[in-house]
Amino acid sequence: MTDRLTMAESTNMRLRLPLLCIILEVILIILFGALVEYNDDTHAKLWNANKSHSATRDDYENEFYYRYPSFQDVHVMIFVGFGFLMTFLQRYGFSSVGFNFLIAAFSLQWATLMQGFFHGMHHGKIHVGVTSMINADFCTGSVLISFGAVLGKTSPVQLLVMAIFEVTLFAVNEFILLSMLGANDAGGSMTIHTFGAYFGLMVTRVLYRPNLDKSKHRNSSVYHSDLFAMIGTIYLWMFWPSFNSAITNYGDPQHRTALNTYYSLAACTLATFAFSALVNPEGKLDMVHIQNAALAGGVAVGTAGEMMLTPFGSMIVGFLAGTISVLGYKYLTPVLESKLKIQDTCGIHNLHGMPGVLGAVVGAVTSALASPGVYGDGVFADAETGKWNPQSRGGFQAISLAVTLGMALFGGLVTGFILKLPIYGAPPDTHCFEDGLYWEVPGEEEGHELNEVATPNEMEKLNS
Amino acid sequence: MTDRLTMAESTNMRLRLPLLCIILEVILIILFGALVEYNDDTHAKLWNANKSHSATRDDYENEFYYRYPSFQDVHVMIFVGFGFLMTFLQRYGFSSVGFNFLIAAFSLQWATLMQGFFHGMHHGKIHVGVTSMINADFCTGSVLISFGAVLGKTSPVQLLVMAIFEVTLFAVNEFILLSMLGANDAGGSMTIHTFGAYFGLMVTRVLYRPNLDKSKHRNSSVYHSDLFAMIGTIYLWMFWPSFNSAITNYGDPQHRTALNTYYSLAACTLATFAFSALVNPEGKLDMVHIQNAALAGGVAVGTAGEMMLTPFGSMIVGFLAGTISVLGYKYLTPVLESKLKIQDTCGIHNLHGMPGVLGAVVGAVTSALASPGVYGDGVFADAETGKWNPQSRGGFQAISLAVTLGMALFGGLVTGFILKLPIYGAPPDTHCFEDGLYWEVPGEEEGHELNEVATPNEMEKLNS
Amino acid sequence: MTDRLTMAESTNMRLRLPLLCIILEVILIILFGALVEYNDDTHAKLWNANKSHSATRDDYENEFYYRYPSFQDVHVMIFVGFGFLMTFLQRYGFSSVGFNFLIAAFSLQWATLMQGFFHGMHHGKIHVGVTSMINADFCTGSVLISFGAVLGKTSPVQLLVMAIFEVTLFAVNEFILLSMLGANDAGGSMTIHTFGAYFGLMVTRVLYRPNLDKSKHRNSSVYHSDLFAMIGTIYLWMFWPSFNSAITNYGDPQHRTALNTYYSLAACTLATFAFSALVNPEGKLDMVHIQNAALAGGVAVGTAGEMMLTPFGSMIVGFLAGTISVLGYKYLTPVLESKLKIQDTCGIHNLHGMPGVLGAVVGAVTSALASPGVYGDGVFADAETGKWNPQSRGGFQAISLAVTLGMALFGGLVTGFILKLPIYGAPPDTHCFEDGLYWEVPGEEEGHELNEVATPNEMEKLNS
Repeated sequence: MTDRLTMAESTNMRLRLPLLCIILEVILIILFGALVEYNDDTHAKLWNANKSHSATRDDYENEFYYRYPSFQDVHVMIFVGFGFLMTFLQRYGFSSVGFNFLIAAFSLQWATLMQGFFHGMHHGKIHVGVTSMINADFCTGSVLISFGAVLGKTSPVQLLVMAIFEVTLFAVNEFILLSMLGANDAGGSMTIHTFGAYFGLMVTRVLYRPNLDKSKHRNSSVYHSDLFAMIGTIYLWMFWPSFNSAITNYGDPQHRTALNTYYSLAACTLATFAFSALVNPEGKLDMVHIQNAALAGGVAVGTAGEMMLTPFGSMIVGFLAGTISVLGYKYLTPVLESKLKIQDTCGIHNLHGMPGVLGAVVGAVTSALASPGVYGDGVFADAETGKWNPQSRGGFQAISLAVTLGMALFGGLVTGFILKLPIYGAPPDTHCFEDGLYWEVPGEEEGHELNEVATPNEMEKLNS
Repeated sequence: MTDRLTMAESTNMRLRLPLLCIILEVILIILFGALVEYNDDTHAKLWNANKSHSATRDDYENEFYYRYPSFQDVHVMIFVGFGFLMTFLQRYGFSSVGFNFLIAAFSLQWATLMQGFFHGMHHGKIHVGVTSMINADFCTGSVLISFGAVLGKTSPVQLLVMAIFEVTLFAVNEFILLSMLGANDAGGSMTIHTFGAYFGLMVTRVLYRPNLDKSKHRNSSVYHSDLFAMIGTIYLWMFWPSFNSAITNYGDPQHRTALNTYYSLAACTLATFAFSALVNPEGKLDMVHIQNAALAGGVAVGTAGEMMLTPFGSMIVGFLAGTISVLGYKYLTPVLESKLKIQDTCGIHNLHGMPGVLGAVVGAVTSALASPGVYGDGVFADAETGKWNPQSRGGFQAISLAVTLGMALFGGLVTGFILKLPIYGAPPDTHCFEDGLYWEVPGEEEGHELNEVATPNEMEKLNS
Repeated sequence: MTDRLTMAESTNMRLRLPLLCIILEVILIILFGALVEYNDDTHAKLWNANKSHSATRDDYENEFYYRYPSFQDVHVMIFVGFGFLMTFLQRYGFSSVGFNFLIAAFSLQWATLMQGFFHGMHHGKIHVGVTSMINADFCTGSVLISFGAVLGKTSPVQLLVMAIFEVTLFAVNEFILLSMLGANDAGGSMTIHTFGAYFGLMVTRVLYRPNLDKSKHRNSSVYHSDLFAMIGTIYLWMFWPSFNSAITNYGDPQHRTALNTYYSLAACTLATFAFSALVNPEGKLDMVHIQNAALAGGVAVGTAGEMMLTPFGSMIVGFLAGTISVLGYKYLTPVLESKLKIQDTCGIHNLHGMPGVLGAVVGAVTSALASPGVYGDGVFADAETGKWNPQSRGGFQAISLAVTLGMALFGGLVTGFILKLPIYGAPPDTHCFEDGLYWEVPGEEEGHELNEVATPNEMEKLNS
């Protein structure tokens, strides 16, 4: 009994992590072998066959050329953006980038299967191409948002288990919203940000650690770790226009979404700097705000970005998003922790939660105000069929938000309890936010002073 | 009176920065609401309408697909390239990346209005799309060049005020060059680099600080800050072909410009390493040269890059640019400071000033030597009309350089005096190059040694 | 005699490096002037002329739009990916990024000439465009792989001399494989990775230093240098789909290659984490594995990625590649050093050598199993002519691997002996892995504590 308890409490990953990774990958490979096929645009024979059927289907019409540059931008956001954004902790850089890398690499494979399963099998097969790659990365983004809430307090095994459940529920929720309710959410204000945020917040609530302040001294940044985090921030900020536009329809919607997001983010940045200085007694800017709140403008136009929101509307939304995000970091996060026992390491409620809900509301309102005189056809699929009713559209968008919140909170609750089992090697309260538990960490720098390396005499001789 | 003086000299940003940011953003939003519209390629109805009018206008002809990948590369240069290039200072990384972020987010909005206003209103409206996004980023680049001259010696409020004036004058100068003089300057050797450099140099001249050596010990790099700066350098270097080609005509000019810039930069890099070692008594390479001079080759083909400069010509220009840039850092910058009282923190005269002028001259000569036998039509708009006169073209290019220098020096002079008013919270001479004035700076790293985190005994127990 | 010996042993670069750089660049410029021309897609007149001949040749058919986004991704891999991957050493960051920059800038120019010379002159001229840019970057990648083996033990002059020979032999080997043997190797498992790895391993074998342990204390990482290295890793990982697909045929092959590489890398990452924890006695992850082995999946589908490998097949290959790579780092590298005297600083045998050979074998098998029923036409050029014989194809692929290994080992041997001449200023055994020999290295950080910058009293006054 003692032995078993010791093992359960141990953080040793020697068997747990390899076993889980290998089992998962083997399952993935088997399922891919059974279920996944190239789609028409990636299959050697089908693409060629389709070409000969139609004189107008040229190479440049392959979806690759419409979507691949956007895919790569999204890819950078997932692996560099999220990964480095979380390196702000002084002793958790290896885990931030490394675990981000691991769970993203797993999630994108699992998401391909789950999304393919729900979003339409073709004769029992899942078809893949650049659009499925983008969607898989999107789903992965949702898991990484949740990772931000539990950052520093979980083992890699826990994170993989969380990803298994979250990806599955993400695909179900996405199916309900996009296929059943016919909602628009190209940039994922609801499906990605709201879902990922409230899922993660519920998980961290269930995993509440009353004695987390034993690791408090490591739950902060140092000078260079904040600069590494800014790499993540800036890449997320720059490529957000590609994120929101990556899977919109070709032509004007893709173009317009990128434009709207660009203006929303710019306005959001000015709001962030303004309120960061304003809420500080000495008027000093806070890196936490700049690193996070400046991105809220991208989240908040995730639904309406493809609509005729106009640059004017985008800037108002962005400005609001930046404002509530800074205020959330300053005033709401401490309350969530002290009153609701929600320990949100990265403040995902401020970056993804509230701005995601704002984005959903903006999307519902913009849909409800849409008219054929402004849109022609294009964004709203039912416009062409004449069954278009903007008010009911707005209603479906609003219902979608409610469904997302319900799915996220319920899913996070269940997943949280599963993650609470003492079998995953989670860090003890005294050793949170610490790479040393799961990584070989190098010693300190030696020979930093030049004359340790070579005496001036030696140096002179070498360079003579 | 004493109170007022104290306030004026204080560096507290609590009211000044939020007030300015919020007022500026509100003005921007109002002007965008009144003046800005989607263009034909971003508007849902107009794009669709245009499609039905013409059978050949397909989705892949949307300007988005020609320009958006280039836009994203330019965007990376503006936010990561310029931002990280300036992190070389040991204690100014937050401000370098952060203020770069702030003034860029403001400038791109303001530039959209100013450039739209000067470059042709459509029935009283400014039309936006990916090309206006690139142009706004270009104008922003000019402001960031000037930022390099005053880096470490200005408050964020001062920088925003500088941006207001510089963007406005940039748009005027660009209008004179491109619309009135019909000059070619796709990569902005004149409009961006020469203008930004001499504007910034004049501003820093007016803001001359005789006692700046009180902060001298902070006006240098440390090991890791130089590596952060190399992130900026390498991104600028890699994406410069996209920068110079982003707004050229479609097809061969865009392709050729990228190619010419690629070769110019490669040759420039070899020159930079050669002269960096040559001018050092011990033959050691200097990070300042590598970080900056290796980029001069991109600046110097900003005008002629779209022309039939040939790889051969590009490499000669790049080699020259790298050479003068290193020599400038070594021999000219100290003289500019001691004799002309120009304190140029980043050495923008060597990276943007002289190479920009070189680029303008190369552009004028290449234009003057152009012939229809080489070009057909394409680069030179008047070639088709038969009014083509290469010599007069070369002349207009030369006049453009003179106009740019005049506008930049005059604008920098006026702006410098405005920035000298003691109301912006500029840092005192003793506290330049220091993040701590405007940022919450984290303390030093704790628990870096593993056995502080856990005694070997504890560790063993955890991992057993 | 003594004087000459002293000079030969000196590491002073003052004359050697500038002289070599300038001579090389002058030769390059002359050869470019004599031999290099714009191709049809970059030439102002030819592009226009071709357009008027054919009604269907529109701007969007310029190869620029098919390949330039991929080119930029490859470019990032070469300069940021390789450059930062090698910054893991505690005191060699300047040299890692800086020498990577120098030899890449040289190699891409020299490669343009060598590849142009071998791959078909047009009336005595080499034609350049985006495809030649990608190919030149590919060849450069091979040199940078070899750089990884000798990292920390060579002077920049030695590296440039190595690049001269390696680029030349690369072009010969590539010509034999692609033009004479008709092999497929779009992502360069053989031409780039296998060649670069075994070339570099042979060079480092010849340059064996029995007393290298005198610099052992510097041949390791520190905390922040490992994070810089992760920037390189993640960029290589993200953009590898672009690398493998950059020069495949348009349409489905380009699309399919990116897709296969994406899945291979994802599976490889899970294998890497699994085996990294498994081979460590305490179950801790090792940054060396994560930084390197996770990339082996990209190497191993470099040949077969464009074929109908299927995601299923790609994932199996990726999983195997990650596994052998980690095991290689753990068990093979120490043996190679102790038994075979191969000092492989970055472990290129594990990242490029073995996975490259695996990729070649996978490519041969996939070719041998190909059938027209699966492919139609497209990937295999001879399929259309009816002369298609999969078995002989597989055979030619296998012969190509053997040729590559022979060329690499022989070329590395000869080049190694050339680099052994005591005239290049190589570092002494006591000063390997040390930036200070070739760079001006800044002193330590001053004023890191806030109260050195300003006493609390002063600060308060400033902010009042």
